[in-house]
Amino acid sequence: MNNYETRRERLYDWMAQEGLGLLMFEDVEGRRDPAIRWLTGQPGDALLFLSVDKRSVLVPWDTNLAALYANADAVVPYGEFERHPIRATKAVAEYLKVPSTSRLEIPSSIPYPLFLQYVSSLPDYDIICRNDGASEEASRLRAIKDEGEIQLYLRAADITNQVIDLLERELLSGTLKTEIEVALFIEAEARKRDCEGTGFESLVAGPTRSYGIHAFPNYTAQPFGGTGLSILDFGLKYQGYTTDVTLTVARGPLSRAQERMLALVEKAYALALSLIKEDAPTREISLAVDALFGKAKKTMPHALGHGIGLEAHEAPALRSRADNEWRLSSGMVFTLEPGLYDTVAGGCRLENDILLTPQGPQVLTKARIIRI
Amino acid sequence: MNNYETRRERLYDWMAQEGLGLLMFEDVEGRRDPAIRWLTGQPGDALLFLSVDKRSVLVPWDTNLAALYANADAVVPYGEFERHPIRATKAVAEYLKVPSTSRLEIPSSIPYPLFLQYVSSLPDYDIICRNDGASEEASRLRAIKDEGEIQLYLRAADITNQVIDLLERELLSGTLKTEIEVALFIEAEARKRDCEGTGFESLVAGPTRSYGIHAFPNYTAQPFGGTGLSILDFGLKYQGYTTDVTLTVARGPLSRAQERMLALVEKAYALALSLIKEDAPTREISLAVDALFGKAKKTMPHALGHGIGLEAHEAPALRSRADNEWRLSSGMVFTLEPGLYDTVAGGCRLENDILLTPQGPQVLTKARIIRI
Repeated sequence: MNNYETRRERLYDWMAQEGLGLLMFEDVEGRRDPAIRWLTGQPGDALLFLSVDKRSVLVPWDTNLAALYANADAVVPYGEFERHPIRATKAVAEYLKVPSTSRLEIPSSIPYPLFLQYVSSLPDYDIICRNDGASEEASRLRAIKDEGEIQLYLRAADITNQVIDLLERELLSGTLKTEIEVALFIEAEARKRDCEGTGFESLVAGPTRSYGIHAFPNYTAQPFGGTGLSILDFGLKYQGYTTDVTLTVARGPLSRAQERMLALVEKAYALALSLIKEDAPTREISLAVDALFGKAKKTMPHALGHGIGLEAHEAPALRSRADNEWRLSSGMVFTLEPGLYDTVAGGCRLENDILLTPQGPQVLTKARIIRI
Repeated sequence: MNNYETRRERLYDWMAQEGLGLLMFEDVEGRRDPAIRWLTGQPGDALLFLSVDKRSVLVPWDTNLAALYANADAVVPYGEFERHPIRATKAVAEYLKVPSTSRLEIPSSIPYPLFLQYVSSLPDYDIICRNDGASEEASRLRAIKDEGEIQLYLRAADITNQVIDLLERELLSGTLKTEIEVALFIEAEARKRDCEGTGFESLVAGPTRSYGIHAFPNYTAQPFGGTGLSILDFGLKYQGYTTDVTLTVARGPLSRAQERMLALVEKAYALALSLIKEDAPTREISLAVDALFGKAKKTMPHALGHGIGLEAHEAPALRSRADNEWRLSSGMVFTLEPGLYDTVAGGCRLENDILLTPQGPQVLTKARIIRI
């Protein structure tokens, strides 16, 4: 069995437990779901159907792409259904001979008005649309990377580290002067190394803009790396999997407020890393970091971290909100990214990607505070 | 009244007609809605509430950004509600003293399971979630650009045309050799000219990859502009509004099949443009182009065009699907993009942005087939 078949097998087992006849995933503009890439290799714009008797039907927009990348038992062009998801669902249910009265689950992201159309167009089936159903089961499974995914992450991290080293060299030598130059340097170096590109729009904020958590626009013609604090947040996507790192570039002379921010963020990062272990509740780790900042009368205006994978933000969550019930497990890959922001002093964030192994945390990336 | 106030006024009138007490828009990861930027200037990550007594409350994730860009009667940080949309809705309804038993409309994109939570958490209100409600009314209003938006489009198109001319020069002189070089050249030239960036990931496909409607990855280290057909599809975003153009670069010697594709696409483009007029049903224009290709035994595997604005794809639709009921109106800005694709001959697409004025169509952009 290849990786895709193994992953589908786990969902077939779950379907049987849940008494589901047919499962549908959707990856379209406005409702992206990387579960389809995870289950078949198809990189986007498709529907995927799984039946409890272990058959998979991919319905891609671009069949040329499917011929190159997709693994599924059958491939039917979406155009045959005029790209209408309910029409496709009906036809595939018939093709797979799913018995009427079966439970048929659609994604938890299906809008309420569209849900009503499914129900009225497929009156013979029991249409299921729920939180904590198939969409969440796929997210839970995706949160723990398998061996194939870990190999891709080691490669993605290696390329990211090469680019971090290059960036440091170019910033120290003064070759990269503006936010645009930095952002496009990253994009070019990533693609030269066979990455699909950056995993999200790089955020390159010089000293006058680094106080924003997410500066807008993400990068401009303004100078980067001048006196004060500059933030550089980027990720590289390798065969679908993205890294996510943040460097802070600190050019002296720094104010006491700036030095204090840097020291606090480094301390928070070290504290968080020391708490990473099997079965640790991520809410407690986040609360410990919040407490450290709180003692210094500072507040971090965002979460401590998040899982990464086929999406830049995925399970597990690492945040202090009361509804966060995630615990860490071996195979999870996630960020730690403490940060502090001040409209006068600027911003400082340090973010690396961590793989939890049975032997403890493995820090995959080498982002750091670069002092110039 | 500024533009934002004028736009909100139109929605307040619509709310009164519909008997709505409160309207909510949401622009978050996974459910993007540029209506909030259109109504307030806030570029992303926020909720917006409008009450029928004409008050607006913006609930942004990043309040620094709101201070710079947003126009609303009140701004409350999303963090105050632990970034929970239902909690925010409850609090704002109380703050605005929306009478209980009022009709409260939430976006048509709200997933079915979340809709159920709204209903159970806000039992005193009549929660409305429908197609053809507020989300669609906002889309319909946004489809016809106002004077402020048309001015931004003229500027965006002017920058796009400058970049097209530069690209032609660099391609003819041989300076830009790879897909990566072309894509990053566009990004840099756009940002230097005060664009927020590209409106979507540029698609740069050399002769071996141009047969894909949307090549994957979008650009690579492969050569661009060599013998045969190369496709270059990009848009520039200026103060939120994106252009969307496609050039085909044809380097000879070309096969007869390639020459025939180019001629057919140019003919289809001219035909489509000749049919653009006030009140024309866009489905009929699309069917006319389909018929032209059909006579030559060719099929276009995508729609003829689409509206553009704060999104790269918005209303009106220009496609031949039976459910397309759009008619053209003055003030609409949309693409025409006939294309043909063949795994051997490669792909050819020609796409420009059209503003319909009372005097007829105005072709804003100058994309073309570049013969080398």
